[in-house]
Order: sequence, then C-alpha cells, then structure tokens
Amino acid sequence: MKIEESIKCAYVESYNGTRKGDKKEEVELIKQTILNAKNIVVATNNPKKFKVVRDILLEILDKEKNKNIVVSKIDIPTEVSDLTRMPALNKGLIAVDTSNADIVIARGRFGVPGSGSMLLIMDNKGRILTGSLSPSSIIHKESIENTVKNELIDALKRIGII
Amino acid sequence: MKIEESIKCAYVESYNGTRKGDKKEEVELIKQTILNAKNIVVATNNPKKFKVVRDILLEILDKEKNKNIVVSKIDIPTEVSDLTRMPALNKGLIAVDTSNADIVIARGRFGVPGSGSMLLIMDNKGRILTGSLSPSSIIHKESIENTVKNELIDALKRIGII
Repeated sequence: MKIEESIKCAYVESYNGTRKGDKKEEVELIKQTILNAKNIVVATNNPKKFKVVRDILLEILDKEKNKNIVVSKIDIPTEVSDLTRMPALNKGLIAVDTSNADIVIARGRFGVPGSGSMLLIMDNKGRILTGSLSPSSIIHKESIENTVKNELIDALKRIGII
Repeated sequence: MKIEESIKCAYVESYNGTRKGDKKEEVELIKQTILNAKNIVVATNNPKKFKVVRDILLEILDKEKNKNIVVSKIDIPTEVSDLTRMPALNKGLIAVDTSNADIVIARGRFGVPGSGSMLLIMDNKGRILTGSLSPSSIIHKESIENTVKNELIDALKRIGII
C-alpha cells in the first residue's frame, strides 16, 4: 500500500463516519517510508543541531552501513519561517520545496514565541509523518544537543522505530 | 505586554538574526493568557473526551471556584478536519471561527493516518499557545480518557502551568 492510498482510505472512512482511529498498517507504512529513505534533508543550517540529527539517523536507519543513506542540511537561510504562525512546519516546507529529499527533518519554534519547539518528520510532499515537542529551554534547562536528540528519538519512537 | 507585541518583538529579532530562543516573559504571557481565560471551547462533540478536558480545566484554572469559567463543547460536526493535512489544527480553527472562545482546546489526528494525535491550545485568533502529542493507540495501548488527560496535562506543563 502506498501512502496516497492510505490517506484516501482514511478520508473515505472519516467522510462516512466509520473511522475508528489509526490502524496498524498505517503506522507500519509511515515506519517503512522513514526506514526506506535514502536522501534525508535536515532543515537547519546550524552545524551543531545537524550533527546530532545526522548521527542518530545514520545509527538507526543505516545499521548495516550499506544503505548509502545521504543526510544533508539545507544551505539557505530559514529564519524567515520564524515570521510565520508555525515556524517548524514552514521550515520543513522550505526544505521540501528546495530539495529532492525523500524525507525532511525540521526543527523550530512550535507556535507563538514562548511555545517551545517542534521537530517534524515530513515526506517528499510535505505531509507530516511524525514529530515531537519540547517545552522552552526556560522550562526544561537542557542543552540544545540533548533536546534535539530527545526530540528525534521521541518522534521515531512514536511510530515504532526504536 | 500583549501577545501581539510579544510576536512583533520576536519577529524583529528573527529578522535581524538576533533571536536567541524563547524568553521567560513570553512563556509567562502564554501562561497568563490561559489562566485568565473565562470562555473555553473544546473542539469536540465527543462527550467522553469533553468531560475529561472540562474536569481538568476547571480543577486547574478555577481552583477557588470563583472565576466563573465556562467550558463548553462545539455543537457542529468536526469530522471534515480529518480530510485535511493537519486534522487537530483545523479542528481548532473551526472552533475559533465559530465561537467567542478566549481559548480553544483541540484534539485530533496529528498528520497523515497513523501519525497519532495532537492536542492544541489556541488563543481567540487561532495562534498556537501550547500543545502535546501522543503516539497512535496501536503503539501505546492506553484508554482514550487517559490519553486525552495526559495530553492536556502535558500541554499545560510545557508552559509552566501545573
């Protein structure tokens, strides 16, 4: 099953009022989309955050070191996304629209200033596969590297990877 | 400080490349917006989910039982939001656009089918104040009441309420 069919099927169920929540095969499809990605783009130009995300992705998605996964960062400024209602989401869409990524990892502010951060994993069309949230560093006092690491692990755990 | 000024100020900082993450006063402003809300609308017409959310909100936001907070649910169908890319977000916007709520609590699917759920707390313009995520019930096996309860508590904790 392709993700387009999964979405179409869920649409029809919702329309008919017969939708009963997520299905095992839908979660599995998201999982496989991420596990099969070869070209992953991280929507950041911050080298520290990029390194954390790349190291975890290579460890988890390329365990046998033979899949030749490419993890790269985008080389255009993304600060403009902070001037939108959902900075993390719009940062991800910048990466989708300017790269040939199979999946995009975006991380930025969740909503209004003070609302903490969001990490998103999107597919090549900008559809949201999974994600995670962290409070502001004002609240949690963790280092940025640890926060990003925990967000990525959390996002992968949500769909049964890890 | 009003939320409009907080947003304008963060915009200018991002534009100038001087933004260093969320500030204490921005988080405090979100907290006060939620604590001072009198008219809260829950974007659901599911009585079970509504009861869980209402009970927690009244317990936390109206501790002295003298603020006369009104927590109500919307009486129009919201299933149409499942036919969008971000069902929880669009369910919240339906409530913002059809009520006089000070804040809206929306809960629904996060992204594509299988991506689990999202709870959002929005203000009267639909701006995102805080939120939380849960994996699909396929992954966590919790009851719907417990999941909704944990999501709401998590969203309030993220900004220092509770």
